[in-house]
Amino acid sequence: MLIETIKWVGDVSGHVELIDQTLLPNEFRMLAVEDVEAIWRAIKTLQVRGAPAIGIAAAYGAVLGVRPIADNASLNEAKEKLKKTCDYLATSRPTAVNLFWALERMQRAADDNNVQSVIELKQRLLIEARAVRDEDAAMCRAIGKNGADFIKDGDSVLTHCNAGGLATAGYGTALAVMFVACEQGRKFCVYADETRPLLQGARLTTWELMQAGIDVTLICDNMAGHLMSLGKIDLVITGADRIAANGDAANKIGTYSLAVLASAHNIPFYIAAPSSTFDMSIADGTQITIEQRAAEEVTESFGRRIAPEDVKVCNPAFDVTPHKYITALITERGIIPKPNRENISRRLI
Amino acid sequence: MLIETIKWVGDVSGHVELIDQTLLPNEFRMLAVEDVEAIWRAIKTLQVRGAPAIGIAAAYGAVLGVRPIADNASLNEAKEKLKKTCDYLATSRPTAVNLFWALERMQRAADDNNVQSVIELKQRLLIEARAVRDEDAAMCRAIGKNGADFIKDGDSVLTHCNAGGLATAGYGTALAVMFVACEQGRKFCVYADETRPLLQGARLTTWELMQAGIDVTLICDNMAGHLMSLGKIDLVITGADRIAANGDAANKIGTYSLAVLASAHNIPFYIAAPSSTFDMSIADGTQITIEQRAAEEVTESFGRRIAPEDVKVCNPAFDVTPHKYITALITERGIIPKPNRENISRRLI
Repeated sequence: MLIETIKWVGDVSGHVELIDQTLLPNEFRMLAVEDVEAIWRAIKTLQVRGAPAIGIAAAYGAVLGVRPIADNASLNEAKEKLKKTCDYLATSRPTAVNLFWALERMQRAADDNNVQSVIELKQRLLIEARAVRDEDAAMCRAIGKNGADFIKDGDSVLTHCNAGGLATAGYGTALAVMFVACEQGRKFCVYADETRPLLQGARLTTWELMQAGIDVTLICDNMAGHLMSLGKIDLVITGADRIAANGDAANKIGTYSLAVLASAHNIPFYIAAPSSTFDMSIADGTQITIEQRAAEEVTESFGRRIAPEDVKVCNPAFDVTPHKYITALITERGIIPKPNRENISRRLI
Repeated sequence: MLIETIKWVGDVSGHVELIDQTLLPNEFRMLAVEDVEAIWRAIKTLQVRGAPAIGIAAAYGAVLGVRPIADNASLNEAKEKLKKTCDYLATSRPTAVNLFWALERMQRAADDNNVQSVIELKQRLLIEARAVRDEDAAMCRAIGKNGADFIKDGDSVLTHCNAGGLATAGYGTALAVMFVACEQGRKFCVYADETRPLLQGARLTTWELMQAGIDVTLICDNMAGHLMSLGKIDLVITGADRIAANGDAANKIGTYSLAVLASAHNIPFYIAAPSSTFDMSIADGTQITIEQRAAEEVTESFGRRIAPEDVKVCNPAFDVTPHKYITALITERGIIPKPNRENISRRLI
């Protein structure tokens, strides 16, 4: 049912294939990636995007980097090449935490005592890269399975932004819940917020849900409250970028408004996110710094200027939803209802 | 301070000038309109838009229609020409109530007993057209004056869509409150929702406020709740398209969400609208039919496709804000605090 965002094709002499996300939703094209430079470009130009997917791309990139080394070359030469490859890939998106994490993991795998030859190194790296992919896929699936029962037959689900498979190894977080509920045979529909300014909901979420055969309707962000007032929304599920120790959750701008509106209409509001999203060093949401992004994302996002020159713009990338508005957190380790410091600690530490 | 949206230049042999709103905000151009066909085109192609402004354009169009008749021609010939002009102009936007209202008013003026010659007809028509304009301007100014005290020094006002001068003879409704507060020397700032899907806030409201020298910041619709949570919004003022007898108000989609969010943050929420907006034959907002508009407004804003082909779209043009969320209605006849059937009847009937 689902299309793999990124995959390795063949054995150690194989190559990477990935969905060119810059062409979506107008064109679906699998890109064959044969060398490290092309992986670097794919990450840099957002052909692959989303923290987990970037990590997987980098891991496969490390395999590609060592591939040209002859099997009878010295192991040190191959390890030297791996090191250079990882240093190079790390420059593709210098703020992506998953990128560094995956590259470090690949270099640790190379130091495995069982690696005694170039061919063993190549095999070990491919195993490790596939493990990065598989662990992410398993984590997404667990989130989906844990949350799927929240969607009942006939429900109408609202989601915001893209917490889908395109950002991960294939299932996503918020969308994983919908994909699994669909696999389990439940019939439901989804309203997808277009998610201004960058329109990830319009461009990616609708596309992913349509691919999976799930009934999806696109709306503008300002329509969600109206639909709630008409009784057309049964539950809301979004992802999260960072969750504080008390359950306050930072996610794409607009999530907070949805949570308040859901509360005002007695509609349950769920956040689906892996345990790696929790930052227990942050007591609450007030300590999360909100990134301000460029004005042009708002004023020129349709390829045409939509506002006066020199207009002031406020463009926060995220907002913080206080835990009191969150009915439950859905993680790969289980459900955390009415999240607060105590029950989050109990579940995650 | 304010720029007139549409005006008559000179005496009965003069012409119309109007702001070509299709070029805003990228270009400010005053269009000289010399004949009835050009007025018809201006209305048809939205060079002039907004119910009151369309009425004024049509009234001036009637004057233009009779202008070519020689002063020594027969009065009947001139009246015949007026009738044909009005019939023709009525076809420009067949659902615009103000258009028909203004054209009927022009024809009634022609039947004035004091009109005994072609030159008297021309003069009478110009007087009537200017009265249409002046009454609208006076109504807007009264709304502005009645509401201005709600804006205090240092306040931050949020507005949605464009309830501004471009839709009227120069002051607008919600924006009139801001223009008058500014004239009265108060310092405040405004956040303008871009207002998807047609972006009237981004394109027109920001432009009007910048022209008036008012400090305005553009935001996406989904950012308003976040700003409220940060304490950055002191009050909300919007216009309305139709208000039921109990005060439930239909306005541009997204208004309802703002009202609920304002209530959740204890922020006053005002609606500014002329008494002509009230429909006392409608008991409450549930009886207001919400127009559904074309999917392409959402998926192809600004000439570029932003969603998959064949995606389902929900695109309601309006929503209804229940009167319980409205702190006060601001009309040209005065303020109606905590609007309900009783106090609206008392003020307006």
